[in-house]
Amino acid sequence: LIEIALTLGDPAGIGAETIAKSVVRYYPSDVHYTVFGNLAHFELLYSKFAWGKRFLNSIARNDLDFTDTGDCGTISIGCNSTAGGRVAYDSLHTALDFCSTHNCRALVTAPISKKALHLASHFYAGHTEILAEYFKCETTMMLFCSNFRVSLVTTHIPLADVSQNITAGNVFATVGRTNDYLGRYFGIAAPKIAVLALNPHAGESGAIGCEESTIAQAVHQARELGIDAVGPLVPDIAFTPKNRALYDGYVAMFHDQGLIPLKTLHFDKGVNVTLGLPIVRTSPDHGTAFDIAGKGVANPSSTIAALKAAIKFSRV
Amino acid sequence: LIEIALTLGDPAGIGAETIAKSVVRYYPSDVHYTVFGNLAHFELLYSKFAWGKRFLNSIARNDLDFTDTGDCGTISIGCNSTAGGRVAYDSLHTALDFCSTHNCRALVTAPISKKALHLASHFYAGHTEILAEYFKCETTMMLFCSNFRVSLVTTHIPLADVSQNITAGNVFATVGRTNDYLGRYFGIAAPKIAVLALNPHAGESGAIGCEESTIAQAVHQARELGIDAVGPLVPDIAFTPKNRALYDGYVAMFHDQGLIPLKTLHFDKGVNVTLGLPIVRTSPDHGTAFDIAGKGVANPSSTIAALKAAIKFSRV
Repeated sequence: LIEIALTLGDPAGIGAETIAKSVVRYYPSDVHYTVFGNLAHFELLYSKFAWGKRFLNSIARNDLDFTDTGDCGTISIGCNSTAGGRVAYDSLHTALDFCSTHNCRALVTAPISKKALHLASHFYAGHTEILAEYFKCETTMMLFCSNFRVSLVTTHIPLADVSQNITAGNVFATVGRTNDYLGRYFGIAAPKIAVLALNPHAGESGAIGCEESTIAQAVHQARELGIDAVGPLVPDIAFTPKNRALYDGYVAMFHDQGLIPLKTLHFDKGVNVTLGLPIVRTSPDHGTAFDIAGKGVANPSSTIAALKAAIKFSRV
Repeated sequence: LIEIALTLGDPAGIGAETIAKSVVRYYPSDVHYTVFGNLAHFELLYSKFAWGKRFLNSIARNDLDFTDTGDCGTISIGCNSTAGGRVAYDSLHTALDFCSTHNCRALVTAPISKKALHLASHFYAGHTEILAEYFKCETTMMLFCSNFRVSLVTTHIPLADVSQNITAGNVFATVGRTNDYLGRYFGIAAPKIAVLALNPHAGESGAIGCEESTIAQAVHQARELGIDAVGPLVPDIAFTPKNRALYDGYVAMFHDQGLIPLKTLHFDKGVNVTLGLPIVRTSPDHGTAFDIAGKGVANPSSTIAALKAAIKFSRV
């Protein structure tokens, strides 16, 4: 059996709902799920829904395992809280220990809240930083949907700080991890990777910013190692249909440079994957969505896509 | 008759070709065109093409007027040159004088090269700066295709300089000009305008950058004046189909934030329009394309769209 670990994320958000909806809809016979979160909170909120009942029944029948984080008191839905941050962190940490000890090669995580984590004295920006610290490795955030895949050199930092983080080393490492992942998990031999410029019109030969020479250096370094990277490409025409057909993956310099085209084309279906870890880790491309939490209206498409990807990559 | 002025742009680029292809394809009976550029260069390069012949015949029959910039010597196709920069600048300047003196309310421009302009000692970043100086007014660059319209607060500056140019004054002025233009030329009463944030996740309440409070201030100021502006919006989910249906126009903080979604969705059909001028000015959404110049293979779709828009806006 392929073992998949899933966390419910911040209990005040839509994570429990999207994970439960996903596992009751998609459960291949050669797969086994273990879910990590707060069961009492789930029962309280979601046992009235059909998918909630099915999820609880699966646990009762031992079709899936549930590892509970224990009593965490009352958690207000849709609000940041210390208890919510603690549950989110504890269930993630327990799931990571489980992966290490139970031959579980893939983890699917539901969204957590940075603010709640901080309230619970876990000072991380998000999953990626927790995972990087846990496994002591450098990681890259990639998002994908069907054949559109984009890795980010920088992630959740102010736009004003992006430029100083564009080093040849960072760009090269991101290109390298992207190349490895596309080969290993997507099964693309010699993937063609488009590396974006940072500035409008790719800087017009230094007339609009100078970071393109740094990016060019990283591309050169990658090509020397036999990686089929090209760039720096003019960002605003890199994502036309013709160009999308040309490249197996993109390397974007900052969060919205990569996520705007992805979500413009594929909202609600994108999958976030962390490259560089010893396990497969995927998640949906949305946040906790506190505004619609607890209502049973959350769309599980992106979580289902994340689950399918985790299973597919585990078979590699 | 509606008078439209057209410039051929840098003679080493695809401008002459796309303008000629456009005017021979689209020439409504209540419109008159006057084209500004280098005729000898056009004849030399394009008289062998059917559309080139038709264009030259139209001039010979006085169906359209051609105002020649005079002898400029030999111009190498696909290369930046002093002569090319001079032709581009002179034909634009002559066209602007023509607009002022001939009751011509609209100008369609083909791409020019910043580098060639500089070689010819015209130290401008592009059309917008020349137009702003000529008419002594502040302008905004907007791009649109069908119902997707996006104005830019900053344009051709390094990404590292964007943050310091996001002032409440700049954002407010851009929102105001966008609102005016959508009302006047697009005929949208009380347009709904989406103002984007600068940082990932709209800064997460100050956790990732602080410019969102400045943007919020400008949005508040606009709303006080009765403009239906909303924001700052999370940039990467602002362009989903649902959101695109919601807003008549977007205000983006920097070049690629607005142009990546536009060109991802509508490449080769976008129109660039300059807001704030006493005349209508449109242009295609691409550059000189030196790599394919002179071959007769350039796609005139974006120029035709720019021409149609100029004529439509002239009828207002």
